[in-house]
Amino acid sequence: MVIVSSQILRNATLATMQPGTSPYGLVEQGAIAIEDGVIRYCGPEASLPAELASLSSQDLEGALVTPALIDCHTHVVFGGNRAMEFEMRLNGASYEEVAKAGGGIVSTVEATRKAGEDALLIDALKRVDALLAEGVATLEIKSGYGLDRETELRMLRVARKVGEQRPVRVLTSFLGAHAVPVEFKGEEDRYLNEICLPTLEEAHAQGLVDAVDGFCEGIAFSPNQMARVFDKAAELGLPIKLHAEQLSNLGGAALAARRGAMSADHLEYLDEAGVKEMAAAGTVAVLLPGAFYTLREKQLPPVGLLRKHDVSIALATDCNPGSSPLTSLLLTLNMACTLFRMTPEEALAGVTREAAKALGLADCGTLREGLRADIAIWDLQTPAELAYRIGFNPLQERIFGGSE
Amino acid sequence: MVIVSSQILRNATLATMQPGTSPYGLVEQGAIAIEDGVIRYCGPEASLPAELASLSSQDLEGALVTPALIDCHTHVVFGGNRAMEFEMRLNGASYEEVAKAGGGIVSTVEATRKAGEDALLIDALKRVDALLAEGVATLEIKSGYGLDRETELRMLRVARKVGEQRPVRVLTSFLGAHAVPVEFKGEEDRYLNEICLPTLEEAHAQGLVDAVDGFCEGIAFSPNQMARVFDKAAELGLPIKLHAEQLSNLGGAALAARRGAMSADHLEYLDEAGVKEMAAAGTVAVLLPGAFYTLREKQLPPVGLLRKHDVSIALATDCNPGSSPLTSLLLTLNMACTLFRMTPEEALAGVTREAAKALGLADCGTLREGLRADIAIWDLQTPAELAYRIGFNPLQERIFGGSE
Ligand SMILES: [Zn+2]
Ligand SMILES: [Zn+2]
Repeated sequence: MVIVSSQILRNATLATMQPGTSPYGLVEQGAIAIEDGVIRYCGPEASLPAELASLSSQDLEGALVTPALIDCHTHVVFGGNRAMEFEMRLNGASYEEVAKAGGGIVSTVEATRKAGEDALLIDALKRVDALLAEGVATLEIKSGYGLDRETELRMLRVARKVGEQRPVRVLTSFLGAHAVPVEFKGEEDRYLNEICLPTLEEAHAQGLVDAVDGFCEGIAFSPNQMARVFDKAAELGLPIKLHAEQLSNLGGAALAARRGAMSADHLEYLDEAGVKEMAAAGTVAVLLPGAFYTLREKQLPPVGLLRKHDVSIALATDCNPGSSPLTSLLLTLNMACTLFRMTPEEALAGVTREAAKALGLADCGTLREGLRADIAIWDLQTPAELAYRIGFNPLQERIFGGSE
Repeated sequence: MVIVSSQILRNATLATMQPGTSPYGLVEQGAIAIEDGVIRYCGPEASLPAELASLSSQDLEGALVTPALIDCHTHVVFGGNRAMEFEMRLNGASYEEVAKAGGGIVSTVEATRKAGEDALLIDALKRVDALLAEGVATLEIKSGYGLDRETELRMLRVARKVGEQRPVRVLTSFLGAHAVPVEFKGEEDRYLNEICLPTLEEAHAQGLVDAVDGFCEGIAFSPNQMARVFDKAAELGLPIKLHAEQLSNLGGAALAARRGAMSADHLEYLDEAGVKEMAAAGTVAVLLPGAFYTLREKQLPPVGLLRKHDVSIALATDCNPGSSPLTSLLLTLNMACTLFRMTPEEALAGVTREAAKALGLADCGTLREGLRADIAIWDLQTPAELAYRIGFNPLQERIFGGSE
């Protein structure tokens, strides 16, 4: 199938994901007209405007069409992998033994610092290609395995290169406040002063930063420390987000919401007070079932409370070498349904409309006139099948800004 | 890469999966010589016999080589899907409401009975292709969604056609004793007498049956009823296996073992007495983490007891539309490690060496002189990565009986 940047897709089952209409914003016998990479019409084929009729058209024979997928939380740039540690643990090694053998995030930081820009890019592209093959067109990528000036900048440059070398839109997040590197052990504030905040400024000056992220947790940074990172982000005019309430409830999501964060992510230990703050601020809840699954977490994120207070829920792979070595966004949908009891419609919205919102993007995430023509075509009858199947890729075609 | 049926793969990291040597039967700097679809040599490259040196050779640059994978328990032939039911449940529908809307196994039986042979084959091949793309070369396929003479025979014919139309070895299992069809509700014995046993005889006479399977459970058939099916299998000289102890402990695995079954499958509720019977009989335990995951089962299969009594453990997708719509055997490895705490080595053995044993095959499952050249080549450094990654396919090449 050849996709050109201007054309009409006709005889399609459209899951537009526009809210407030039918489930999934479903349109049977639909058509989408694309001109210069932008959606010019999306709706019933019968109502297609006459002035668009000159575009070449393609009969999809009823195939399901959705917005292209958006993975709004990933760490796909890193060195090495943690298979050895995975194996040691399953062979009964204690955390101390794993740590002694160089396991944990320390090992990823070490491998990432050692890896050159080309090696990091080659490894990242393999993971990115797996995501793209399932219909992803927008991808967030974080730094945070360098924890020194040079490597944090290198990770962000590699993230930008991913967007240059593949047909995918990449948004970067500076995650210098991911962990305290061994050389600053116990001196979080000194690390923030001497490395994290100056590197953020420098990375921003180089145009490498689209948003600022952090990890607010007992084993990482306190709310007060995160507030300092957010102060710097505000000073630089950068939007913020936060890894919050993953392992305990420190009030990180509420802090992030009060600072106007685009999203708070993980959230297993979030309470209703935090949910209310997120609702008031319009902060999106990004749930990460891959990490929940891998860590065999028992504490479920408060999906019922998020629904009750109308907080937007997005989903992402959290692709990272330790707690979520996951490169399938479709599997993430199934996990969200199976493990978190989200509905297939919520799950699909979570990787389209709501994921766009989590990234502050207004030009993608649904199928609507005027938006980017980021579109996925699936060999499926109904959108629920996207979440129902496990380990199956029904993608027929991915359209990125109008071109294949 | 072009694979010919006679050649040498050199500079390989071999995970031979031969027991009793190093973990994974690992050989660094290894070579495999293939002649006419059979392994002629497998070991250190330095010891390659001179008489094989004339074969053309291929430098794998250190890539990981394992036996091709074996999925020893699947239901990949069926009509329809159960996405609607999946969605209804997640939207809060009760079991009664789902049943009223035509959900459950009844709906799959209905869709399978309605589907023609071609339609069943087209759908099955999509699932089979997903398995093959991950390095599967041997595949078990069960009947059991017909529950009438005509459809059970049709399912088995389709299973045979899968093996004709794709480069994969298919072994069929007759699963007429899968459930009681609605037209025989409450009359299990009459169903066995009038449909199941006569259809087994007929299918066997047509050469469609490699083994006989059943579902021993409160909602299906009792041990006494299964014994009657096993009697018929013995009369026909067919090997047996059983779905046992999935939802409760009825002693099905012990019954199967005493009858010399090749495998007993599921086994979440198996007790030590049953484990001992399986050990004594050499019956393989086939664990199915996809169904465990999908059903959100809490009762773990007794992996520790199986290890203690040296029962072989195999793993399979259990690919089916209801309790395991899973078409990734690699994801099955990860689930076995993450959910059942099996080691990556046990998991890989479970889809190679032990899966061959579960199917009664002595000519595949490890890399060894004289066995079929069913081989998988992976873009990986270490075999543990096969189980560690989630939703990633690192297959570089699959060799089936010597040819690509
Ligand atoms: Zn993360
Ligand atoms: Zn089964």
